[in-house]
Amino acid sequence: MKITIRPANKADFPEVLNLIKELAVFEKEPDAVEITVNDLEKEGLGENSLFQCLVAENENEILGMALFYFRFSTWKGRSLHLEDLIVREKHRGKGIGEALYKKVMEFAVEHNVKRVAWEVLDWNINAINFYKRTGATILDEWRIVHFRENELNDYLKQ
Amino acid sequence: MKITIRPANKADFPEVLNLIKELAVFEKEPDAVEITVNDLEKEGLGENSLFQCLVAENENEILGMALFYFRFSTWKGRSLHLEDLIVREKHRGKGIGEALYKKVMEFAVEHNVKRVAWEVLDWNINAINFYKRTGATILDEWRIVHFRENELNDYLKQ
Repeated sequence: MKITIRPANKADFPEVLNLIKELAVFEKEPDAVEITVNDLEKEGLGENSLFQCLVAENENEILGMALFYFRFSTWKGRSLHLEDLIVREKHRGKGIGEALYKKVMEFAVEHNVKRVAWEVLDWNINAINFYKRTGATILDEWRIVHFRENELNDYLKQ
Repeated sequence: MKITIRPANKADFPEVLNLIKELAVFEKEPDAVEITVNDLEKEGLGENSLFQCLVAENENEILGMALFYFRFSTWKGRSLHLEDLIVREKHRGKGIGEALYKKVMEFAVEHNVKRVAWEVLDWNINAINFYKRTGATILDEWRIVHFRENELNDYLKQ
């Protein structure tokens, strides 16, 4: 199977959104995805876009994607955040995930970032073992905090 | 004590860096801060800057700061990441931290973000209790992964 990895364009966004939804099911949050294709177009195109996206393609079929953006670490400086890396379920185990992963890390090195960061569920042992094997570190002591839109509004009304 | 909260400018960056170093000591990583004032200037000024920064000031003295930037959540859309919120140690307990926190949340709501995210050490119980009291949620199941520059290079050489 010949896999091509290339930047996503507007026409790919419906398939990209399908992949995002597929991952949310795997992560046991099937209803968590609130974005639409319109949000991907609004935030992912043009000069001030909030993210970049690569897709893995075989014979005009999108089999996987990686979505990422720059961040700023006050310890290390410019860094890259890998928001999602997804391979369609029936095409897993064929090396597509690692090919995308490698492309993201190459992009990171080309852009002189000091580190790449992402998030993983603590029960996703296969993913954690893969990340460790490549040389990444799981931060055991740090927790993520989320303050959601409606809770934010409630807080500011106090 | 009259506290003014305003956007940081270039002249504030040395004091902002001192605050970043003070927080790293508190977080038991005194040698983790590798950035310089030059990195803050390079990445924090101009149209394509990677972050925004607010400072809390009293009589021309910087007593605290908050540094943040936009991210893109593939579940929720445009979000804000609060990278650091720091109050100089001897000025804690005077409400400066919460004043900065509130300003960041107001900025978030004004910019229609779907959520604000940040990271906390699991032993920083005072911070965790404050966040929960305001309405934020600690994500127990998620872990942060870091792939550092030298490890990245080793991986890509394989």
